[in-house]
Amino acid sequence: MHWRAIIRLFGLLLMLYSLSFLPSLAVALVYQDGQWSVFLESLAATLSAGLLLWLPNSHRESELSVRDGFLIVALFWALLGVFGALPFILGLHLSLTDAVFESISGFTTTGATVIAGLDRLPPSILYHRQQIQWLGGMGVIVLAVAVLPLLGVGGMQLYRAEASGVAKHEKPTPRIGETARVLWSLYFGLTAACALAFWLAGMTLFDAVGHAFATVATGGFSTHDASLGHYDSPLIEAIAIVFMLAGAVNFAIHFVAWRDLDVRAYLNDPETRVFGLTILGGSLFIAASLYWAQAYADVGSSLRHGTFQVVSIMTSTGFGTATFGDWPLHIPLVLVILSFTGGCGGSTAGGLKVLRVMLLVKLGVRQLFQFAHPRAVLEVKIGRRVIKEDVLLSVWGFYVLYIATCLLLTVAMMAAGLDLESAFGAVFTTVNLCGPGLGEVAVTFATVDPVVKWLGVFGMLAGRLEIFTLLILFMPAFWRQ
Amino acid sequence: MHWRAIIRLFGLLLMLYSLSFLPSLAVALVYQDGQWSVFLESLAATLSAGLLLWLPNSHRESELSVRDGFLIVALFWALLGVFGALPFILGLHLSLTDAVFESISGFTTTGATVIAGLDRLPPSILYHRQQIQWLGGMGVIVLAVAVLPLLGVGGMQLYRAEASGVAKHEKPTPRIGETARVLWSLYFGLTAACALAFWLAGMTLFDAVGHAFATVATGGFSTHDASLGHYDSPLIEAIAIVFMLAGAVNFAIHFVAWRDLDVRAYLNDPETRVFGLTILGGSLFIAASLYWAQAYADVGSSLRHGTFQVVSIMTSTGFGTATFGDWPLHIPLVLVILSFTGGCGGSTAGGLKVLRVMLLVKLGVRQLFQFAHPRAVLEVKIGRRVIKEDVLLSVWGFYVLYIATCLLLTVAMMAAGLDLESAFGAVFTTVNLCGPGLGEVAVTFATVDPVVKWLGVFGMLAGRLEIFTLLILFMPAFWRQ
Ligand SMILES: [K+]
Ligand SMILES: [K+]
Repeated sequence: MHWRAIIRLFGLLLMLYSLSFLPSLAVALVYQDGQWSVFLESLAATLSAGLLLWLPNSHRESELSVRDGFLIVALFWALLGVFGALPFILGLHLSLTDAVFESISGFTTTGATVIAGLDRLPPSILYHRQQIQWLGGMGVIVLAVAVLPLLGVGGMQLYRAEASGVAKHEKPTPRIGETARVLWSLYFGLTAACALAFWLAGMTLFDAVGHAFATVATGGFSTHDASLGHYDSPLIEAIAIVFMLAGAVNFAIHFVAWRDLDVRAYLNDPETRVFGLTILGGSLFIAASLYWAQAYADVGSSLRHGTFQVVSIMTSTGFGTATFGDWPLHIPLVLVILSFTGGCGGSTAGGLKVLRVMLLVKLGVRQLFQFAHPRAVLEVKIGRRVIKEDVLLSVWGFYVLYIATCLLLTVAMMAAGLDLESAFGAVFTTVNLCGPGLGEVAVTFATVDPVVKWLGVFGMLAGRLEIFTLLILFMPAFWRQ
Repeated sequence: MHWRAIIRLFGLLLMLYSLSFLPSLAVALVYQDGQWSVFLESLAATLSAGLLLWLPNSHRESELSVRDGFLIVALFWALLGVFGALPFILGLHLSLTDAVFESISGFTTTGATVIAGLDRLPPSILYHRQQIQWLGGMGVIVLAVAVLPLLGVGGMQLYRAEASGVAKHEKPTPRIGETARVLWSLYFGLTAACALAFWLAGMTLFDAVGHAFATVATGGFSTHDASLGHYDSPLIEAIAIVFMLAGAVNFAIHFVAWRDLDVRAYLNDPETRVFGLTILGGSLFIAASLYWAQAYADVGSSLRHGTFQVVSIMTSTGFGTATFGDWPLHIPLVLVILSFTGGCGGSTAGGLKVLRVMLLVKLGVRQLFQFAHPRAVLEVKIGRRVIKEDVLLSVWGFYVLYIATCLLLTVAMMAAGLDLESAFGAVFTTVNLCGPGLGEVAVTFATVDPVVKWLGVFGMLAGRLEIFTLLILFMPAFWRQ
């Protein structure tokens, strides 16, 4: 480990991050909500911490190894989670547990909350909360498009071609800096378009920007307790659907579509295609179930609520417009399965990712065929590309660790006092970065034991870091030279 | 397909099976419970059906292909299930649905029931019910030791060495007949020893034989509604533990231990070793949880109930001595995970099987190591044997299909009206061949919708036939020439 170089980097990062309190400070001053000192103190504390880390190590710049990279990625979310919690402690007087939970939930773009009474919160705190999600989204598209494919986390090496296509001039060493700049331009453009659309559809400018932050990042935080249900507007829901989907598609594909000004980029990508068809099929199935069970009187309402819920859960955004309470019992289960499937790789979405689920299904079918025709040589293909066996095994390893993490977290949460449904709900919603759970945590994590909240923090970090990147830090082999 | 040869074989099989009604007939006559005509009619009907199938095809004997083998194995359980249901229809006037459910539950050694008031049932019907499980166990050890390893179902090819070791003189063509004879001698010996032990421990001879049938077959049917809890005897529970474990160990290993009169055969087998350690660890964990939650006042009771429950669920037997109602909430979940793990391959137990779970875990860990050391060449090993990648992929395919089957069945059962907990309970207990479920089906399937019962029948057959062998029949590719 190049410890001092890592510490130097985090010093720089914290100093940079401290600037992100400035917009919140501006909001506090404009809305005169009395919170300006909170953000000034947070800024000062973060800047000082950054300087303290940086100064003694300012000359220790050095080449970082892959192992350093793992540590940096994992600490990045944990560290920003802690400093992003400052305004919740200083402004809302939340406990350390609650403040860190809320902040990590933001940075990982999960959107689970411990705060009730959002409508009465100071605007600057609300803004800070939305902005955390947006910054978390910025972090993750670079992680997912440029870093994970190189590390080859659980099949992510399949995205290498897409990743190297983003930086204009392909070079042996991937240029993460240039890739990041291109991705962030796209991300910024999508956010601006989303905010504009929300604003034109009738939101206040404040709400439009805040919800755009949470939509494109597939985060799901809202400035209202009733989430998007607050507006009861089909138009706003339709806009949210478009931009949630945009946030859950591989940003490298966005880049190609934008560069060539050609939407066929989406249709040509097997993962995006299957993602779209699953959203379509899932929406029709849920809408039909709702209509059949007479949860809604007309076809239109069934389609509206069915589609919104499917998109919101499968993209791992977690905006709500309706409660599941009156819905037929098998619907929540289908939504949970879609949540595990998740969005596309290289996006801000959580879950296993569509491509991995495609490989799972294709391998299951292949083994069945192989079994019927023992001598046939059958390949697993994605589009026209043949997937090698080591990649398949890599995806399998990912899958095993994902399931094992979920099972152990569920047992631990039950031991900490949750019932089965709530524990499972808390686990699927944190690990898949979704937001709303089931049972006791259907709406908020406010009432659960602190142990459950810390387990949730672990779940969110594990989900955001694609399990491997977090678990590897707990392996002695990683720390040995 | 050699249809007429297959039909001829089933004719012979049914004629043979019709003889199994004779012991029940004898019980009816000895206990004078008025059911003798039921068994005479069942015998006559089964014998006639067998003759009807056999006579027109008696000269159509021919070499059977592997494809024929799949059909025979799948139809074997379905067909015996239907004819084994006759006494339930004729004697207890159950509906066709209920009778077939009960019979398939017996033949697959699941042990889920739709009958309440067992203590008041005619002895001959009770005997028939226990005997079904024993016969199902006979069928499955031959299937699991001699047939599945040759077909290579989801990693079962790993058992080929053990399988060929059972028949004394190794030959290129495996001699299923000789293997079956050896296995059945062992099975018969274990059953006799179990019955004797139960009898000496205080059961009536009738109960001792009946429970021995259900114990060695890891079936779990009982002649009392309170199951083994009826006796409230630590000695009887200890005997049941020993023989449930025996039923859940690979019979090829039993054979080696018996041939060499050396218990090290068990310790030398990696799967049996891990199985034993999991049982030990699971029992201690559950006992500690029970004591910690003060579900039982003393350490002894906690250990007694914890161990029995772990053995009963993990061996997929499903005998009960206590209800989970007062137990801490995470215990049922741990038991469900153990139930999915299941017993060893080549045994009468259900579940994924210990060896497959070992491969799942080892691959997960290997991928994590590989990730920390990208250039290392790491092998997955069971004992000293290196597992090839095609076997790993075959196990993965199995796992995917297993999970997919469980998820789809759960959704279907919820659509048929069960709540989430009950649907999940009904699925895990049927597919894993366990017996008792959760929620509405915690004790009996009597009250659920007929659709749920038929879904349960499908689940039990899928579990018994290791998914592949059943699903392959639904593939067009299988039926094409
Ligand atoms: K989310
Ligand atoms: K059983």
